[in-house]
Amino acid sequence: MPVLHDEIPDDADFDAGRARGEFSNITPEDFIRGSGHGNPPGWLSSQEIEWARRKMPMPYVEIVPARTDTSGAVTQVGTLLCVDDEGNIQRTLITGRILYHETIREAIARNISKDLGELALPVLPPSPQPFTVAEFFPTPGASEYYDPRQHAIALCYLVPVAGDCKSQDETLDVEWVEPHSDMLDVFASQMPGGHGKLLKQALLWAGVL
Amino acid sequence: MPVLHDEIPDDADFDAGRARGEFSNITPEDFIRGSGHGNPPGWLSSQEIEWARRKMPMPYVEIVPARTDTSGAVTQVGTLLCVDDEGNIQRTLITGRILYHETIREAIARNISKDLGELALPVLPPSPQPFTVAEFFPTPGASEYYDPRQHAIALCYLVPVAGDCKSQDETLDVEWVEPHSDMLDVFASQMPGGHGKLLKQALLWAGVL
Amino acid sequence: MPVLHDEIPDDADFDAGRARGEFSNITPEDFIRGSGHGNPPGWLSSQEIEWARRKMPMPYVEIVPARTDTSGAVTQVGTLLCVDDEGNIQRTLITGRILYHETIREAIARNISKDLGELALPVLPPSPQPFTVAEFFPTPGASEYYDPRQHAIALCYLVPVAGDCKSQDETLDVEWVEPHSDMLDVFASQMPGGHGKLLKQALLWAGVL
Amino acid sequence: MPVLHDEIPDDADFDAGRARGEFSNITPEDFIRGSGHGNPPGWLSSQEIEWARRKMPMPYVEIVPARTDTSGAVTQVGTLLCVDDEGNIQRTLITGRILYHETIREAIARNISKDLGELALPVLPPSPQPFTVAEFFPTPGASEYYDPRQHAIALCYLVPVAGDCKSQDETLDVEWVEPHSDMLDVFASQMPGGHGKLLKQALLWAGVL
Repeated sequence: MPVLHDEIPDDADFDAGRARGEFSNITPEDFIRGSGHGNPPGWLSSQEIEWARRKMPMPYVEIVPARTDTSGAVTQVGTLLCVDDEGNIQRTLITGRILYHETIREAIARNISKDLGELALPVLPPSPQPFTVAEFFPTPGASEYYDPRQHAIALCYLVPVAGDCKSQDETLDVEWVEPHSDMLDVFASQMPGGHGKLLKQALLWAGVL
Repeated sequence: MPVLHDEIPDDADFDAGRARGEFSNITPEDFIRGSGHGNPPGWLSSQEIEWARRKMPMPYVEIVPARTDTSGAVTQVGTLLCVDDEGNIQRTLITGRILYHETIREAIARNISKDLGELALPVLPPSPQPFTVAEFFPTPGASEYYDPRQHAIALCYLVPVAGDCKSQDETLDVEWVEPHSDMLDVFASQMPGGHGKLLKQALLWAGVL
Repeated sequence: MPVLHDEIPDDADFDAGRARGEFSNITPEDFIRGSGHGNPPGWLSSQEIEWARRKMPMPYVEIVPARTDTSGAVTQVGTLLCVDDEGNIQRTLITGRILYHETIREAIARNISKDLGELALPVLPPSPQPFTVAEFFPTPGASEYYDPRQHAIALCYLVPVAGDCKSQDETLDVEWVEPHSDMLDVFASQMPGGHGKLLKQALLWAGVL
Repeated sequence: MPVLHDEIPDDADFDAGRARGEFSNITPEDFIRGSGHGNPPGWLSSQEIEWARRKMPMPYVEIVPARTDTSGAVTQVGTLLCVDDEGNIQRTLITGRILYHETIREAIARNISKDLGELALPVLPPSPQPFTVAEFFPTPGASEYYDPRQHAIALCYLVPVAGDCKSQDETLDVEWVEPHSDMLDVFASQMPGGHGKLLKQALLWAGVL
């Protein structure tokens, strides 16, 4: 089973990010509070995240990005094409760990920005009530959702995006699909671990499937 | 018990509206399909609405308009000051009947436009799942919600508005209140029939009370 | 398009029911408040319901009955086989109009009792928040849901039933299906008007599909 | 600020529990997979939980136990009186960490059993969608919810209990309150950290406040 790219950069990722100036608003105190070699607050070193994944459920957000028409109805949902750790191409949704002392809203905004860029202009949900909670277990068949890396508890939201969405560093492409398109079933079937079901559930919840 | 102004204009209201050019996009066929003396589709004459209110539950939308910050968190909620049929000033939320062949989304947009104007720029909810359903009965004490006119089943939504909100014909003023302001309890206590509870429930649902 | 049997008995149905003693707890005052020739309160005559269906959206409950295991997880969902007004066999969910001055909870209980019998022992939902609201329009294609008779606004609930479920007068059979059974798609495809989608959405919402 | 008793027993608690035969269905393999000196799977040693609490958000369930009438409507909600680590009496709801490889449903059942006993007969929710998600931060004022020990993300459910509820080892008493009782405000005000708001929100969500 291929492993999706991890949303948590390890030290090397962070150093690369710092070289690009991504963490310029982080203060020295933040670094002291952070883990490992200068990680920002809430981030864990590779060893720490590895330990935590074998010991605790990891709180996640999972986001279905959506295009809406002028009436607010969903017209398209977005999926990501990315390369997993083993070099395989995967289709997935926007998903990421909620960091220490980060709000759900901040985690949603950060992960959308990470995968769709700074100009996506997401309309963040007014309430923390998710449309569902997906329980991913590292044991295949233990639930509807499977993640070989960890036990993840994913709060799932559909988030309209009004701006320009561009694939970022770790993503090959952002592909959109209409609810009644034949491609929806194709896309859903390409999304392992139950993410395809979440895509469909988001559309049913939005009343457009 | 004073009676709130009705959101359903009777023939006279409609004629006045037509004089103001409000229904210019309605075709002759629509008029033929409408009720009474030239009402648009879905509207009922005074006699019809009176009959229906004694015979059937009336489906409604009830909307808590909200201001949000850049992160999408609710910072203010809006209430309306209006004059009821007996001349008393009342504080209320945006509420209106769902018309025949009108979607929930259209009913929300129409009622926001009616009470806050055409420039309110509401962000309509992506899903029809309401944060609650309030059951108003004409019998005091039959439920948490009371409407002397009718049995109404109100689908309740919190709707962020991004634009200019101006009180319209039937409304004296639009007044906003912060979640942790002392005025919130004052406002809620001024809203009869259980609408004050819906205001607070919307804020609790949004995680800001 | 065949028309499903209507949940609102007309006078003849009611007289038959009274002959069976079904309405023995209704007082004379109730009859006076009711419509037509002795209908209980909230019921409409055939003419009245016909009029209302062309003029107003009709508030409905739609119920997915479910079997649960000792942990509360859904193991089966139930569907009804019934004969429509034109003599065709149809598969459907439990659905019925909310009557005047009836609570949503009462409407759910009444319709479950009508279709599954008095011994079904439903576990009614603690909250009126539905898992979705399905908007049925009499115009095919106007929304995801189609009802040739009317514009219906259906509050949708999944309701565990713990007791014996037996098909009643208007129903040929109650058939259950497991979430991961091949029969689920067959059943869903046999349910016209979008009811099959609601069956799947209920299972996705319950986290077992 | 007093600290509530922790739901995670440390080794001593576990040994005491094993002496009472509480973990008799745990296999030797489970012990090997567990942490520390014979803890069951998913449990952490005191040092581990201490580390995790400073590094990661902790996924929790928070449960409002409820009594319902024959129609399923909530008539009472339950609160716990317990002694915190500093010896102060506190009123709280049922709350506990979701353990590694434990489902949300199992976490709800386990924590109800822990606080109300084995005979509480909870009616577990059919869906993982919570009525809200409460974000507790260790920084006062960072959100509506405060937990001095940790950043906790609590999935909140109202759970009807049909059986006998008895206070357990760590709880002094289980006290019930009616939605419209004067005691509700008293109880809510005695619940620190925002738990009193969750009590009220649960009742509003249930449509009985």
